[in-house]
Amino acid sequence: MAMVCLSDFEAYAKKYLPKIAWDYFAAGADDCTTRDENILAYKRIRFRPRMLRDVSMMDIRTKILGTEISFPVGIAPTGFHQLAWPEGEKSTARAARAMGTCYIASTYSTCTLEEISAAAPGGLRWFQLYIHRNRAASQQLVQRAEALGFQGLVLTADLPYTGKRRDDVRNGFRLPPHMKLKNLEGAFEVCKMSLLDPSVTWNDIYWLRSLTRLPIIIKGILTREDAELAVRHGVQGIIVSNHGGRQLDEGPATIDALVEVVEAVQGRVEVYVDGGIRKGSDVLKALALGAKCVFIGRPALWGLAYKGEEGLQDVLRILQDEFRLSMALAGCARVSEIGQHLVQFSKL
Amino acid sequence: MAMVCLSDFEAYAKKYLPKIAWDYFAAGADDCTTRDENILAYKRIRFRPRMLRDVSMMDIRTKILGTEISFPVGIAPTGFHQLAWPEGEKSTARAARAMGTCYIASTYSTCTLEEISAAAPGGLRWFQLYIHRNRAASQQLVQRAEALGFQGLVLTADLPYTGKRRDDVRNGFRLPPHMKLKNLEGAFEVCKMSLLDPSVTWNDIYWLRSLTRLPIIIKGILTREDAELAVRHGVQGIIVSNHGGRQLDEGPATIDALVEVVEAVQGRVEVYVDGGIRKGSDVLKALALGAKCVFIGRPALWGLAYKGEEGLQDVLRILQDEFRLSMALAGCARVSEIGQHLVQFSKL
Amino acid sequence: MAMVCLSDFEAYAKKYLPKIAWDYFAAGADDCTTRDENILAYKRIRFRPRMLRDVSMMDIRTKILGTEISFPVGIAPTGFHQLAWPEGEKSTARAARAMGTCYIASTYSTCTLEEISAAAPGGLRWFQLYIHRNRAASQQLVQRAEALGFQGLVLTADLPYTGKRRDDVRNGFRLPPHMKLKNLEGAFEVCKMSLLDPSVTWNDIYWLRSLTRLPIIIKGILTREDAELAVRHGVQGIIVSNHGGRQLDEGPATIDALVEVVEAVQGRVEVYVDGGIRKGSDVLKALALGAKCVFIGRPALWGLAYKGEEGLQDVLRILQDEFRLSMALAGCARVSEIGQHLVQFSKL
Amino acid sequence: MAMVCLSDFEAYAKKYLPKIAWDYFAAGADDCTTRDENILAYKRIRFRPRMLRDVSMMDIRTKILGTEISFPVGIAPTGFHQLAWPEGEKSTARAARAMGTCYIASTYSTCTLEEISAAAPGGLRWFQLYIHRNRAASQQLVQRAEALGFQGLVLTADLPYTGKRRDDVRNGFRLPPHMKLKNLEGAFEVCKMSLLDPSVTWNDIYWLRSLTRLPIIIKGILTREDAELAVRHGVQGIIVSNHGGRQLDEGPATIDALVEVVEAVQGRVEVYVDGGIRKGSDVLKALALGAKCVFIGRPALWGLAYKGEEGLQDVLRILQDEFRLSMALAGCARVSEIGQHLVQFSKL
Repeated sequence: MAMVCLSDFEAYAKKYLPKIAWDYFAAGADDCTTRDENILAYKRIRFRPRMLRDVSMMDIRTKILGTEISFPVGIAPTGFHQLAWPEGEKSTARAARAMGTCYIASTYSTCTLEEISAAAPGGLRWFQLYIHRNRAASQQLVQRAEALGFQGLVLTADLPYTGKRRDDVRNGFRLPPHMKLKNLEGAFEVCKMSLLDPSVTWNDIYWLRSLTRLPIIIKGILTREDAELAVRHGVQGIIVSNHGGRQLDEGPATIDALVEVVEAVQGRVEVYVDGGIRKGSDVLKALALGAKCVFIGRPALWGLAYKGEEGLQDVLRILQDEFRLSMALAGCARVSEIGQHLVQFSKL
Repeated sequence: MAMVCLSDFEAYAKKYLPKIAWDYFAAGADDCTTRDENILAYKRIRFRPRMLRDVSMMDIRTKILGTEISFPVGIAPTGFHQLAWPEGEKSTARAARAMGTCYIASTYSTCTLEEISAAAPGGLRWFQLYIHRNRAASQQLVQRAEALGFQGLVLTADLPYTGKRRDDVRNGFRLPPHMKLKNLEGAFEVCKMSLLDPSVTWNDIYWLRSLTRLPIIIKGILTREDAELAVRHGVQGIIVSNHGGRQLDEGPATIDALVEVVEAVQGRVEVYVDGGIRKGSDVLKALALGAKCVFIGRPALWGLAYKGEEGLQDVLRILQDEFRLSMALAGCARVSEIGQHLVQFSKL
Repeated sequence: MAMVCLSDFEAYAKKYLPKIAWDYFAAGADDCTTRDENILAYKRIRFRPRMLRDVSMMDIRTKILGTEISFPVGIAPTGFHQLAWPEGEKSTARAARAMGTCYIASTYSTCTLEEISAAAPGGLRWFQLYIHRNRAASQQLVQRAEALGFQGLVLTADLPYTGKRRDDVRNGFRLPPHMKLKNLEGAFEVCKMSLLDPSVTWNDIYWLRSLTRLPIIIKGILTREDAELAVRHGVQGIIVSNHGGRQLDEGPATIDALVEVVEAVQGRVEVYVDGGIRKGSDVLKALALGAKCVFIGRPALWGLAYKGEEGLQDVLRILQDEFRLSMALAGCARVSEIGQHLVQFSKL
Repeated sequence: MAMVCLSDFEAYAKKYLPKIAWDYFAAGADDCTTRDENILAYKRIRFRPRMLRDVSMMDIRTKILGTEISFPVGIAPTGFHQLAWPEGEKSTARAARAMGTCYIASTYSTCTLEEISAAAPGGLRWFQLYIHRNRAASQQLVQRAEALGFQGLVLTADLPYTGKRRDDVRNGFRLPPHMKLKNLEGAFEVCKMSLLDPSVTWNDIYWLRSLTRLPIIIKGILTREDAELAVRHGVQGIIVSNHGGRQLDEGPATIDALVEVVEAVQGRVEVYVDGGIRKGSDVLKALALGAKCVFIGRPALWGLAYKGEEGLQDVLRILQDEFRLSMALAGCARVSEIGQHLVQFSKL
C-alpha cells in the first residue's frame, strides 16, 4: 500500500494499533461533533488562487518565537506515544528534528524529558504543562524543561477536568502496566486526572512567569475574550485549540475560532492552531487566516504507528510537499505572501 | 453493555420493550420531522467556552418556582409508565425524589395520584392537566392533586386533538387490558381522546385559577405571541414544548422556540423547555438561552425500561455528571454564571 | 397493509403498476431535481402554531372562482388515467365529485370529455388545454368543454415542447394500443407532442377569450414577471406549477415560486399551486403562503392505481383529515384564519 | 444500453476503459472536492423560466472571437486522447468539425498538430499552450499552430506544477510505450512536468504576443483580480477554469468564479468557462451568467471512449438538443435573449 496522503496513515493505524490505543487516540468528547467539525470546517473554506506569479523558487520556511523552522507545521502535544511505537516520544523528537520543525512534548509523555532531549539534541522543543494540585511538582517540571533546553512553555488551559470520551469509558482505558507517565513518577500517583488543579485561573500565568524565563504559550483558547485576557496576562503565544475535540464537545472548530482570535490579538502575540489539519492545503488556509504555524496531533501518532521516527517523517514530508505545492498553485512563493486575500468562506 | 450515555438506554429500550410500547413512546407526528429536529437543533448551537476560571467548586443546584432542585433537569409529563416498567409512575416518583428533582405526573398515568404520592412522600411534584369536556372531572383532578401536595399545575395547551402518529395507527395502539388510566376511572371512559375539550381558550386559565392556589405552568407554547398571552393571563411558568414532536409536525424545534419565548417574556415568568435533551451539554445550552430548567420525556422512559427506579436514576445521574462537566469545561462554576455569551448559533 | 398516509399509496402504486406506467407517472425532467425539490421545499417551511384557540368547530370549506369546495384540495390535470385504472378519468371524476372538490381534466385524457361528464354529472370540473398547431381542433375542444358544463379553462403554459424524461426515452414510452387520447381522435394523430404549438404567446390569451365565456386559469407560472403579465392579459386564476418537475429541470420549487407570485398578484386574481403536496400540513403551508387551493397530481394517480374511484377517495379523505387536524393544531378553525403569520422559512 | 444523457457515456467509459486511463481522466487533486464542486455548483443555480414566448424558431448559434459556431459548446483541451480511442485527437477534430464547433487541441496531444489539421481540414481549432523552460520549443509550437490554421492560442495559467492526483500516484500513471506526446518529440523528453516553467508571469503574455498574430485566450483564471490583469495585458479571451479540479483543490467551482470574472471584465473581452458541464441546462446557466461559450473536457473523452468520432458527436448532439430544449422551456428563442434574469442562486 502506497502512503500517498495522511488518510493512508490513518487507515494503517486503525488497522494495526490495538483497539484500545486506536480508540484512545481517536476519541472525541461525547458525540465527537467537534472532533469531526475540526476537519469539516476546513472544507468550507475556499481558495482564491492567483495565476502567473513566479513560483519557481519556493521558500516555505518560517519563524516561531524567533526560531526558524523548515515549514510551518509542528508536532502538537499528545500523550502516551509508546502506545503508538515502542520508542515513544524519543522517536517523535528525532523525526521533528530531522524535519527541522518544533515538537511540543506533553506532560503525559511515556519518556522522560531527559530521554527526549538526549534522543535528539539540538532539536527545537517546547514543553506542554498541566498545572497539578501539587504545585511543587509542576514547578519542578517547568524548571527541568528549561534546564534541558526546551525553548517554550505551553500551558494547556482547557482541561480542568478530563472530557467524557465514551469509548475510553467503555474500554476502561488505562496505560498498559509496562508504560509509565515517567515525568510524573514520584511526584504523585499517575493517570488520575483528579490530580489536575481545576482552580487554575489567569493569575497563575503570573506564577508561571515567576518560575521561568521561557516564553509562555497558552493552548486551548477559543474566544476573542480569552485571547484578549491572554495578551493582557503577558503570554508570548496562543494556540487556538479544542484539544482535538476531546474536551467540551460542540465548541467551535479551531479554524473558525482562529479567525476570531487573530482579529482580537491584532498581531500583539503569535497565534497558532491545531486540530483538523489533514492536508498541506489546510496549512495554507490556516496561515491565510493568520496562524503563524499549525500543529498536528493525531496524524503524528499515525506516522509513529506506521514506522516510528521514519513514519512520522513520512507524514511531515507529505504535508511539506503538499503545502509547498498548494502555495505555488495559489500563487505564493514565500510564506510572507500568504494572506487573507487567498481564502473565502463558502456560503454552504 | 456499559450504560455510558443516554443513547445506550435508548438502544436498550428499543431492544427489550414490546414493539407496540416502543413505537408509542418513540412516535412523532406525520414524518417525525419535528421530533428529530428537536435533537438536531441542539447540534447547530456552538459553545463559546471560557478558560482559566476557577471551577474547583461546582454548584449545579437551581430553583424552580422557589423550590430548590439538585440540578436543572426534571421529568416531563408522559403517559403510561407501566408500559415501560411494572411499577409505572411509582418508580418514576421515587427516582425523581432520590435525585432531588421535580417530576411532572401526567393525567394519563397508569397509577393514581394517591399511589404516586404515597410512593415518594415529600418529593417535588407537579401535576399535568388536560382539560376534558367533562369540566367537573378536570376540576376534581386539580383539587385531588393540590390536596396531595403537588406543588404546580401544568396545563397542556397543544393537544386539542391528538396528533397523527402513523405507527400508532398501523399498530392499532391501545393500552393492554391490565393497565388503566387510573386517574380518570369513573369520570369517563378512558383512552378516547375525543373527550378532550378542543374549545379550551385562554379564558380557561381564569377558570383554572379559580379552582386552585397552585402555580399554573402552561406547556406547549412555541411563539412570542402566545408567550405574551400566557404572561398576561397570569401563569407562573411556561414550558416551551412541541409535545416531543407528537402533535403538529414541522413546527419549530423547542430550543429554537425557546429563544423567541425568552425574549418575549423578559423575565416576567420562568421559562422551561423540553424535547431533544440527550446530553448534559444540551442542558447547558438550554440554560444559556434562558431556560430555568429542562424536562426530559423519552429518556426517562428509557431509564424506566432499563431498570425501573434505578434505571431512571442512572439516566438522571449521567445527565447530572455531564451537565456539571460541561459547565466546568465552559468555565462556569455556578448556574448563575451561565448566560447567552456561552453559545452561538452555527451558520450551518 | 394499512393505508395511513400518501406514501403508502405511492409504495403500492410502485409495486403494482407496470413499470412503464409507474416510470411515466413518476418521471421528472433530466436529473429530477425540481420534481424532488417540490417536496423538499415544503420541509424547509416551519409552522408557528398558536395555542388555546377554540377549534371545536372546524370548517375547512373554501371557494374557488366563486364555487364552494369541501376543502382546498383539487385534482391537477394529468394524462392517461387508464394507465392507472381501467375506468380512467371516469373514476377520477366520480371520486372528485364524491369528495366535493374540483377535477381538472386533461387534454390528454383516455376518456372523452363526454364520458367524463356523464360519469359524474354535476361535479365541479375545469378543462385543461394545450394549444395545438391545429387551432381549429383546440377551439373545438374548448367549446365542447364549455357545452358539457366544465366551469373553467386551464391553459398550460409550460409545454411548448415536452421535457426530457430520461426513463421515458429509455422505456420507449407510448400508450398501449388499446388506449387512445380520445379527445383528440380525428383532429390529428395523437401522442406526437410536436403537434403542440410552440409559437403560443400571451396574445393567444385574447384568442382564447374570444372562444369562450369560461374563466381562464393559466398554469405553469413561476415568476413575478409572468404573474404580472397573466393578470394584465385578463386571466381569472394562476396555477403556480412546474408541471411536476417534468419540463425544465432546476426551476424553482412551486411552494417557493408561490411566494413570489402571490406578492406580485396582490389579490387581483386567485392563485393556486400544485407539485409536492404529500400531507395535509403541506396544504396548510400553501394556504398560509397565499394559495387559494392546491391541486394534487401524482397522489391522485396512486389512489387510482390502488382502487380506482375508491382509492382516490381514500387519498383525498386522508388529505382532508390531515389538513383539518393540522389547522386545528395550528390554532385555526376556519380557512379564513390561515395566514402568513403561521409559517416561517427555515434557515436551513 | 441507450445513450440518453452524458452520465450514460461516463458509465460506459468507467466500465470499458483501462483502469489507469479512467483514473487519469477522472482524477482530481487531493480530495477531489473542487472536481465535484464544479458539478454541484450548477445544481445550486435555479432557473426563472418565462412562459408564452414564441419559441417555434430556435436559433442556438453563437460566435466566439468572431467565428460562428453551431451552438455554444466547444471541446476543452485535454491530453492523451489515444488513451480513450486509438485515433486519438484526429477523431476529436473530426467530431468537432462535424458538429460545427471549436476544438482546443492540447500541447499534450498524442497526435501531431499536423495530423490533427489534416484529419479535419477547415475545422475551427485553437491551440492550447504550456510554456516550457525551453522557450524555443514553445515558440516553435505556437508558430506551427499558426501556420496550420489554428485560430486561437490558449495559454494555460494554472499549471506551474502538476496538482497532486492521488490515484495517479498510486497507479504510477504514465503513458503506455506506444503513445507519444508527439508535439514535443525532439524538443525535450516528454511526460516530465518539471519541464514546465514555473517562473511564467504576466509579462510572458507580451512575449507570446510578439510570437504570433493569433488571438490569445488565457485559461485558468478564477478571481476578479486576475481577470483585470488579463484584460490589461491584452488577451482576447478568458477561460474560467480550475483545470477540472486537477490542480489546486478547494478553489471555487468554475460557475461561481464565472460570476466574479464576468463582473470584473465588463464585456471588454470574451469570457468562457469549463468544468462541470453535464447537461444542456448547465450550458444555459453558464450563458445566463455571462459566458460566451462553454468547453467540455471529460464528457468529450467519454464520447471518444464510447465510439471515437461518432461517440463524441453523440455527446455533442445530446448537449445540443438539451441546450435547445432548455432554452425553449426557459422562454428564449435565440442566444441573445439569454441573460442573468433567467437564473438565481439557491439559498441552499
